[in-house]
Amino acid sequence: MSIGPGLTMPCYARDMPTAGIVIIGDEILSGKFAEENAAFLIGELRALGVDLRRITVVPDDLEDIAATVLDCSRRFDYVFTSGGVGPTHDDITMAAIAKGFGTTIMRHPDLEARVRGYWKDKLADANLRLADVPDGAELVYGKDQIWPVVALKNVFIMPGVPTLFRRKFVDIRDRFRAEPVTAARLYVDVEEGELAPSLDAVVARYPSVKIGSYPRFSEKDFKVLVTLEGPSTDDVSGAFEMLASTIGPRVIRREEPQRVGE
Amino acid sequence: MSIGPGLTMPCYARDMPTAGIVIIGDEILSGKFAEENAAFLIGELRALGVDLRRITVVPDDLEDIAATVLDCSRRFDYVFTSGGVGPTHDDITMAAIAKGFGTTIMRHPDLEARVRGYWKDKLADANLRLADVPDGAELVYGKDQIWPVVALKNVFIMPGVPTLFRRKFVDIRDRFRAEPVTAARLYVDVEEGELAPSLDAVVARYPSVKIGSYPRFSEKDFKVLVTLEGPSTDDVSGAFEMLASTIGPRVIRREEPQRVGE
Repeated sequence: MSIGPGLTMPCYARDMPTAGIVIIGDEILSGKFAEENAAFLIGELRALGVDLRRITVVPDDLEDIAATVLDCSRRFDYVFTSGGVGPTHDDITMAAIAKGFGTTIMRHPDLEARVRGYWKDKLADANLRLADVPDGAELVYGKDQIWPVVALKNVFIMPGVPTLFRRKFVDIRDRFRAEPVTAARLYVDVEEGELAPSLDAVVARYPSVKIGSYPRFSEKDFKVLVTLEGPSTDDVSGAFEMLASTIGPRVIRREEPQRVGE
Repeated sequence: MSIGPGLTMPCYARDMPTAGIVIIGDEILSGKFAEENAAFLIGELRALGVDLRRITVVPDDLEDIAATVLDCSRRFDYVFTSGGVGPTHDDITMAAIAKGFGTTIMRHPDLEARVRGYWKDKLADANLRLADVPDGAELVYGKDQIWPVVALKNVFIMPGVPTLFRRKFVDIRDRFRAEPVTAARLYVDVEEGELAPSLDAVVARYPSVKIGSYPRFSEKDFKVLVTLEGPSTDDVSGAFEMLASTIGPRVIRREEPQRVGE
């Protein structure tokens, strides 16, 4: 797509499954905790060959969570939510997602049995909220057969506590595995302004290759990092060689095309 | 607002200015770089007394950037964008924001003069793209009188390179300074399920206080961290004492109410 004189936007082949992440938590937005779950999931999704298209951090607000999750569910193949799942007043994710999809909360009998079995005579009433899920939700079991992940359509509802989030995602991640991508990098001693025409030419010649250009001002040995990535190894290799030969001896370091996620 | 039997959602006094952050970058979503600018801005906005309500990370996609920035501009008092500002093909933030606001890109004469003065005889054509801004944009000068921040209405358009992002924000941050909040914490040796009724009571009694409950499973000396926060020191102190006296000796550690951002 042309966006101005001489400018093109990379048109990335979209045969990878797509994903969005919704982080629910006042505690992130107010800086009480550093965000860890999206940071973790970025690497996981990349290794699985899933194209992450959006991360949104929203507050503990029913309407906002409802609208944001529904929007992501319509746009992407998978949505992962983090946080707001538990027994206290600020745990409103299940109610919000139910509202977003126009359904209500129900107490799931399988989950209720698990909650009662886990706490036994120490069960507090509020713990039973862990068994409340949107009507129509599925329980997704991985290798850990004790606590499933609750999913409504393509939305996977995960806890916000980072240790639990990681454990649960790793448990079910194989179901998301898709095709790997090929990635390569060039570190060049050329300013971005001077580099732009060469990049434009490669972008035009190899539309399936996503090319990123990242100036760095605190590095001594290079000025710009150029990244290349795409589903076709041939195209990424072709773009890589075309760009490397244009820049010539001012390429400082090369990281050759290789498959990621295999 | 009631969201179910016995459940209330904190109704936070909304006299603080609000903000949203839009991070533009395939490089974040694909894991090439860790996100640093939102992480930095969270702490800055908190210290300034600005209520951060949303962070969205979007890809280098014209339509997506345009729609996301416009949406945030309508919802919040301030919007900060990071990334996609520069001379190469993937730098489409200015064009996208112009499109979102129904305007076009123009070459700003003041910026063009600065660009020409900076590069002098080493100027590459592509560098002049740094002078292209949405029609109607303002140049916001801080203490650094060389490179201003480009702003369109309430949208402040910042570079993605973390060293530049930080320097530019620090340069202009005083204009965003608002009222401080009061914050306090309790570390308690009570499970969340058991804690829930006490929290509900405090939430009902002190609606202006935002109360967060965060279970931690890897800590030895406490089970849940409870955070309290609000614009009124009296209300936060009242909520803090009410909760502390309910929990009694099972409060492991107290962090007394104090003003943040003064």
